[in-house]
Amino acid sequence: MTFRQQHLLGIEQLHPTEISAILDLADSYAEHNRQGRAHRDVLAGLTQINMFFENSTRTQASFELAGKRLGADVMNMGMQASSIKKGETLIDTALTLNAMRPDLLVVRHPQSGAVDLLAQKVNCAVLNAGDGRHEHPTQALLDALTIRRAKGRLHRLSIAICGDIAHSRVARSNIMLLGKMENRVRLIGPPTLMPSRIADFGVEVFDDMHAGLEDVDVVMMLRLQKERMDGGFIPSEREYFHRYGLDAAKLRNAKPDAIVMHPGPMNRGVEIDGNIADDINRSVIQEQVEMGVAVRMAVMDLLAQNLRRARGPQEVMT
Amino acid sequence: MTFRQQHLLGIEQLHPTEISAILDLADSYAEHNRQGRAHRDVLAGLTQINMFFENSTRTQASFELAGKRLGADVMNMGMQASSIKKGETLIDTALTLNAMRPDLLVVRHPQSGAVDLLAQKVNCAVLNAGDGRHEHPTQALLDALTIRRAKGRLHRLSIAICGDIAHSRVARSNIMLLGKMENRVRLIGPPTLMPSRIADFGVEVFDDMHAGLEDVDVVMMLRLQKERMDGGFIPSEREYFHRYGLDAAKLRNAKPDAIVMHPGPMNRGVEIDGNIADDINRSVIQEQVEMGVAVRMAVMDLLAQNLRRARGPQEVMT
Amino acid sequence: MTFRQQHLLGIEQLHPTEISAILDLADSYAEHNRQGRAHRDVLAGLTQINMFFENSTRTQASFELAGKRLGADVMNMGMQASSIKKGETLIDTALTLNAMRPDLLVVRHPQSGAVDLLAQKVNCAVLNAGDGRHEHPTQALLDALTIRRAKGRLHRLSIAICGDIAHSRVARSNIMLLGKMENRVRLIGPPTLMPSRIADFGVEVFDDMHAGLEDVDVVMMLRLQKERMDGGFIPSEREYFHRYGLDAAKLRNAKPDAIVMHPGPMNRGVEIDGNIADDINRSVIQEQVEMGVAVRMAVMDLLAQNLRRARGPQEVMT
Repeated sequence: MTFRQQHLLGIEQLHPTEISAILDLADSYAEHNRQGRAHRDVLAGLTQINMFFENSTRTQASFELAGKRLGADVMNMGMQASSIKKGETLIDTALTLNAMRPDLLVVRHPQSGAVDLLAQKVNCAVLNAGDGRHEHPTQALLDALTIRRAKGRLHRLSIAICGDIAHSRVARSNIMLLGKMENRVRLIGPPTLMPSRIADFGVEVFDDMHAGLEDVDVVMMLRLQKERMDGGFIPSEREYFHRYGLDAAKLRNAKPDAIVMHPGPMNRGVEIDGNIADDINRSVIQEQVEMGVAVRMAVMDLLAQNLRRARGPQEVMT
Repeated sequence: MTFRQQHLLGIEQLHPTEISAILDLADSYAEHNRQGRAHRDVLAGLTQINMFFENSTRTQASFELAGKRLGADVMNMGMQASSIKKGETLIDTALTLNAMRPDLLVVRHPQSGAVDLLAQKVNCAVLNAGDGRHEHPTQALLDALTIRRAKGRLHRLSIAICGDIAHSRVARSNIMLLGKMENRVRLIGPPTLMPSRIADFGVEVFDDMHAGLEDVDVVMMLRLQKERMDGGFIPSEREYFHRYGLDAAKLRNAKPDAIVMHPGPMNRGVEIDGNIADDINRSVIQEQVEMGVAVRMAVMDLLAQNLRRARGPQEVMT
Repeated sequence: MTFRQQHLLGIEQLHPTEISAILDLADSYAEHNRQGRAHRDVLAGLTQINMFFENSTRTQASFELAGKRLGADVMNMGMQASSIKKGETLIDTALTLNAMRPDLLVVRHPQSGAVDLLAQKVNCAVLNAGDGRHEHPTQALLDALTIRRAKGRLHRLSIAICGDIAHSRVARSNIMLLGKMENRVRLIGPPTLMPSRIADFGVEVFDDMHAGLEDVDVVMMLRLQKERMDGGFIPSEREYFHRYGLDAAKLRNAKPDAIVMHPGPMNRGVEIDGNIADDINRSVIQEQVEMGVAVRMAVMDLLAQNLRRARGPQEVMT
């Protein structure tokens, strides 16, 4: 039994062999998806609830599609409009849903740590679909799978993560995953958009794109999270693109076969030149989305296996 | 044939034997849900449309889950944003949906009587998921099932319904159901939140919690419906909690084994002390949510049986 | 192979034999729907995504129901609230969804031509559910099926389309379809609500309802599209109804067995008298909605057949 988790709360909790187990299974799901093969039996009879306290069309769609492909009953709950207005606490909302006996609970929440808290209160598997500035584990896993497929391996690579690191849970989860798999990670961005305790991460830091991109295998751009910048220094988009936006000139410093990634949605002309994003020889942005569905299928499959194992005796008794 | 209804519009129309038939079937669905057993064939091939003219995440989710567990195709229509804006009448909206040939129509509407009106215009089974201050029959049924499971019976119990009775369709449906099953019902709350024609209900009325709760078997708290109080006397939350909020001191007047109920979402510290809500020896609030799914499964199963019986010859003819 | 399209972008691209092929299949689906027969295998294993950049409860519901009746996995994406706000381009949104490997993409968009553009970027079948003032092909097809069932034929009929022609994609698609099937089309409405290049359409134009309706077989009313009138002449509703609203007096000019149609949602008392709309001897408005589901089932069935044929070798290879 390689994957021992009850929940997927973050990359932090995962052992490298667990990461590999997820990616191996996701890789085979990716191939089956391309062939149009169905796997309705994997989650048949299980209920998946998507609880999004922050709006995210693409991530929610990816989880929904993954669940439906595996035969789950999927229920989307737009939590912004609902009980929150009525003054219900997060825990009461969670306990209410838990009482409906779901099997998989996919949660996105604007506060760091909210998903961990919630997981302690329910008796189903919880998947973190992004919590505040904390973690976004399925994004890091889909990025890892995309890299592994493009580069043939997921270790001893030199990977630059560029842009708004401070506000990015995507960056945080990626830094941890890539470190665990023994890659060299560089962070590139303006000092105002760097996290305060960089030393903890075991990474190199640059504030110059040309220097930072030198000889890297992978260039991972981040979305400029304007909506998360409260009170801090906000650069003008033009100035930002000039200094930190990925264009052909800056990309020339990377290895000739370096790949370009972006978690989407992109601000074209702000953090990335549209031509680079569309260059099918460099950009793997569409493949990232495709791998997103495969990774979520793999994670839900593995969690459901552990859930069934854990519930085994209980079910007979109740 | 114990259950003869074509629609579930309210508790008012139900005979006590029909209530028992629903609760018996719901009880067995509750057990099967705990065991993870599926019943996909019950509503297979039928279309359930949830038409919510008022937002209600938890009730809609409960109906959706119930339908999916029984194999129905479930379609949610958020009616607030849509055709209403375009000036379409309720009846035209209903006729339009009816022309799509649904089998089960679950309707919540802010106006009392709107669901009854709608049921006269369509040829599918209509379920009232709450209409104005009128009825909320599945809530009363799930409360009844929760009480029956906790107390071992649903007759000759002493039950206090506390708080904002005047604005509450939950209270109204519960008073009728509990009366039909021959229980003693007490209403406790400030005179300003009491309905004007209490005498009709055959209940005892208290405006003091200590006196009202004396020796009751069940304490049913209501949500303070701030959103429905227009122009009337609105007590301060602090004052309200002091006089009518359920806390340990007031609960001591009830029987030692009295259970505590709340339809949710709760205003902790307003109508109920958080510690009471979380006390697993007294509170059956989570069980109410769980029974909600089971009751809705039972009602939809019974209505679908009657629908198929009624349509039998018609289908062959068309 | 009668139906050769890869997408359903508009009536303009369809050959009359393709239109007949759709209507024949839709007619049989309509009968099966009345009998409650299921066809789960037709789209089993296929993913249908509804991408509505404009709100439309009834059209989205019709597509959703059609897909679910045929066994597709259906996913609704409310695009108004989502990535658009985050500044993503339409093409990037389309490429993202495409990377999730859907099979059928149903798109409504406020801009004319947006759906055609999108179809060039993806490798699944695209269905136009209405784009700007351009086309709304499934509406024209369901209108055609309703006429054919009521009149026994879809050629050599005299059909009046009345009201706000200029802003109406429904009118535009209907004019093309009815012309292709060799019917005589009349447009009736105020000159300010007529398109500028009417001569291109090969139709007769009237601005008087009494004259225009004389001896027609079909009276097709349009919704007054207040939301699309920007800056132009907006008639008062009362004046509009007096001159162009369909009432008993005006309808007396049509053939005694003329049918009355409306795409919904109706503005009763603005473009149509409520009594006419409800007259079951004249109005086929409910039947239009019913045929909408059947037509969408037929179109998705035919597109899926072509999709599978096209993908055949590719799937084995990948």
